[in-house]
Amino acid sequence: MNPKEIDHIGIAVNNIEKAFEFYKSLGWKDLKTEIVKSEKVRVGFISFGNNVHIELLEATEPDSPIAKFISKRGEGIHHICIRTEDVKEDLQKLKSKGHRLVNETPKEGAKNCWVAFVHPSSANGVLIELSQERES
Amino acid sequence: MNPKEIDHIGIAVNNIEKAFEFYKSLGWKDLKTEIVKSEKVRVGFISFGNNVHIELLEATEPDSPIAKFISKRGEGIHHICIRTEDVKEDLQKLKSKGHRLVNETPKEGAKNCWVAFVHPSSANGVLIELSQERES
Repeated sequence: MNPKEIDHIGIAVNNIEKAFEFYKSLGWKDLKTEIVKSEKVRVGFISFGNNVHIELLEATEPDSPIAKFISKRGEGIHHICIRTEDVKEDLQKLKSKGHRLVNETPKEGAKNCWVAFVHPSSANGVLIELSQERES
Repeated sequence: MNPKEIDHIGIAVNNIEKAFEFYKSLGWKDLKTEIVKSEKVRVGFISFGNNVHIELLEATEPDSPIAKFISKRGEGIHHICIRTEDVKEDLQKLKSKGHRLVNETPKEGAKNCWVAFVHPSSANGVLIELSQERES
């Protein structure tokens, strides 16, 4: 066992409310949404019992990374986010082993977190986000 | 909040040990593997702190669903598994709302569970597995 946790799974969708219908059928009731301007996305949060979320990601502008993803591959899973205690240290470990990073240093993400992405070519086709809570 | 939990994320890979290198760089040490003959796959389990797993899925035969997936789309996320209390009831709920199911009734899965798959066309391009622990 490793103390790291799965924080969320990001799913690129055309429309959050339409996508939520599936989860509604399975018993989810309320949907919280938030706009993340810097990423040009609207996010819909679906919470699971074991502290994991699904984030439904909808583009807010035509040049949003999510719009590009959907036009190329269609709707589907966009990334997995791993909650870690030290993103900076993890990036160094990955770099020293020759893994390809999207972000060389952590940047400010949503929910008061430091985040960084690892390139899918280093993780078997999966875009991995590392996320660490910032001290308030 | 919904009591349902994310059980695991299944990732289709060419070689489990090679794929595990990435997670090893992030601090994971031991890799448990298991062959699921009925699905023609070898599975590598990576455990996270909040009771979620990543399952690395490697084809054991050329006609394995995982071999077909990789030849069509390359390595990447294959499915998300949701742990639920009653797969049968969930299937009925989904069906009554017009969602498309892969399995109309639960089948025996790995780890002494009842499982059923929902078609990606009903969940925004994501293959969803529902899983329920069987009474022993």
